[in-house]
Amino acid sequence: MGRLTGGDPSLLRRINSAVVLHALRGAGAPTLTDLTRITGLSRPTVEGVVEGLFEAGLVVEAVPDESEARRQGRPARRFRFRAEAGHLLGVEIGPHRVSALISGLDGRIIGAGSRVVSETAGADDRLDQVRAVIADVLRRTGVARSSLRAVGVGSPGIVEADGTVRLGTALPDWTGLPLGERLRRSFRCPVLVENDANAAAVAEHWKGAATESDDVVFVLAGLSPGAGSLIGGRLHRGFGGAAGEIGALHLLGRELTPEHLLSTTDTPLDPLDEQAVAVVFAKAKEGDAGAQAAVERFLQRLVHDVAALVLALDPELVVVGGWAAGLDGVLGPLRKELARYCLRPPRVTLSLLGEAAVATGALRLALDHVEEELFAVEGAVTARR
Amino acid sequence: MGRLTGGDPSLLRRINSAVVLHALRGAGAPTLTDLTRITGLSRPTVEGVVEGLFEAGLVVEAVPDESEARRQGRPARRFRFRAEAGHLLGVEIGPHRVSALISGLDGRIIGAGSRVVSETAGADDRLDQVRAVIADVLRRTGVARSSLRAVGVGSPGIVEADGTVRLGTALPDWTGLPLGERLRRSFRCPVLVENDANAAAVAEHWKGAATESDDVVFVLAGLSPGAGSLIGGRLHRGFGGAAGEIGALHLLGRELTPEHLLSTTDTPLDPLDEQAVAVVFAKAKEGDAGAQAAVERFLQRLVHDVAALVLALDPELVVVGGWAAGLDGVLGPLRKELARYCLRPPRVTLSLLGEAAVATGALRLALDHVEEELFAVEGAVTARR
Repeated sequence: MGRLTGGDPSLLRRINSAVVLHALRGAGAPTLTDLTRITGLSRPTVEGVVEGLFEAGLVVEAVPDESEARRQGRPARRFRFRAEAGHLLGVEIGPHRVSALISGLDGRIIGAGSRVVSETAGADDRLDQVRAVIADVLRRTGVARSSLRAVGVGSPGIVEADGTVRLGTALPDWTGLPLGERLRRSFRCPVLVENDANAAAVAEHWKGAATESDDVVFVLAGLSPGAGSLIGGRLHRGFGGAAGEIGALHLLGRELTPEHLLSTTDTPLDPLDEQAVAVVFAKAKEGDAGAQAAVERFLQRLVHDVAALVLALDPELVVVGGWAAGLDGVLGPLRKELARYCLRPPRVTLSLLGEAAVATGALRLALDHVEEELFAVEGAVTARR
Repeated sequence: MGRLTGGDPSLLRRINSAVVLHALRGAGAPTLTDLTRITGLSRPTVEGVVEGLFEAGLVVEAVPDESEARRQGRPARRFRFRAEAGHLLGVEIGPHRVSALISGLDGRIIGAGSRVVSETAGADDRLDQVRAVIADVLRRTGVARSSLRAVGVGSPGIVEADGTVRLGTALPDWTGLPLGERLRRSFRCPVLVENDANAAAVAEHWKGAATESDDVVFVLAGLSPGAGSLIGGRLHRGFGGAAGEIGALHLLGRELTPEHLLSTTDTPLDPLDEQAVAVVFAKAKEGDAGAQAAVERFLQRLVHDVAALVLALDPELVVVGGWAAGLDGVLGPLRKELARYCLRPPRVTLSLLGEAAVATGALRLALDHVEEELFAVEGAVTARR
């Protein structure tokens, strides 16, 4: 049982501050009069809030442009949100590569970097590369480490809320790794770890192929596909963070292992890696019947895994990313088979962000965290049932 | 961009009214002093609200019990929520049976009825039986039709928001049926139509096997299983209302049709109905090897379908209902296989509500609708981003 907490003055100040900050980010360089009009707040309230934001370093006076400077009389002061008051990192840790993106508080990306990592590199080596790529990016953009407000990290595996990898078979030494804790030692700001497919789903929704839809399944297509889902615009992690980990599904049908599935001979494909698979796809394109059959089996399994997600969740849109999305002929069969078996087939499209999807989503999650601190007032004042 | 709508007096009245009504439902027969203490509202506010609820017929004065009546002096007036001020119906429309439950505004069931319907009955016949069973229940409980505040209906198929069946292969003439519209003609109150598995999920969460969990998959196990999911305690319908309709999943693997799956001979099982399937299960129990193999295939498919849901959604709990849940040996293999293939296996349990699950969930949805009108203030006052 709850009630409206009538007039908590600090809460009201926080709400007003968030409202003005939003208006500042939305408008170019508004005057106090603009802000009063946009927010509906009183002039003294707006003045008080802007002064506070000024002191916090989140707002600066905008330099008047020439046309305005030439005009008669003293122009009204204009203000702008200081996106450079803080920075965010988005990091991807993958089997072959680690990468990082950096942005200001407005989320605009101002730098990027990546490093190749061996598929067999252990956790310590891989984390060393992560730290190195972050140091590269900070140095090249001239951003001080102390300016970082949050770091988002996308990683394969099931990730617990505290950033521990509960299960991660894609990378050596990954299961049980306290990834969040290990990385937090390098930063004074929060480090948020998220499953890679989940991060990619968030990214496509933010600035990729899914900006128009709030009900999205992102499929990270590879040898063993993973997926991330947005329901009503919000990430669906599942009760234990394992939602979308559909890679094991085919095992239940006692079907072929990927090694057999993609083999063009009687013996399993060894080693089973992306390069070997690309060779099979290339052979299929040249007309090799055995390779074509292998590709057909591979696609059929992908279709089946995606269909399971679609039937369970009923999304509006399926976005296919990951390296297998780049292979020829993935989208056509997916669309055709989903239309055949799903009671309400979703739209199916390719990732727009490609290789940048996971790091971009990790950055967005870091931004969400900071925005929650700066702006969030939603739900702060509700009468609970 | 939104702001707190400072002091809208009608909104405040609504909130206070909801708060008092909640307190009245929770407490037995509180006095005005009790209500003032429970709600934190002022005495005049509570008095005003109670008076309003009195006039609306939602509150009556409670009759003092003898011990109180014997005491010295005039006892404080006590009030109680008038659950009998309105009634709700929960209706299930199934292949073999239509049934109805009725409750007062407190959700306590005060009557029930059901009628057998032929599997081959058309939509008109089936709806006649629905109307007849409702009339039975109203007559037997002495509730006037005008006292109904909302009617919930659980039906097989994909159901649109307006109650139209977009696709429903389980019942004759069902696809395209404007079920909500057809039933609304018999009532002056809202009629809400929901997919049967979705309704059952809501029911198990309300008063069945899932009262302790907010992340639940309910599997309506039958020849072609359907499912309903709760995520964070809320029904997940999917973008087009088709979430959980996993019956088509096996088709993608080019596996056997149910007719072949359950056949103990080389020819498909004909007719394929629950009775024929029960015979196969009985034979298997007697040791018939062919029947045992058929049962094994049937269970394996159910396991596969449920695994798809679990991998996609990662629920805390799976509740298995529907007629196939009553067959011997369903739960064991499900638990074993899910533990084997799911990265984070959920708990698996049988439905507690059994045959009453769908109608109970339909009633709960009707109750939700009415409670929203009476009580809901949640989200009414928020500062939107």
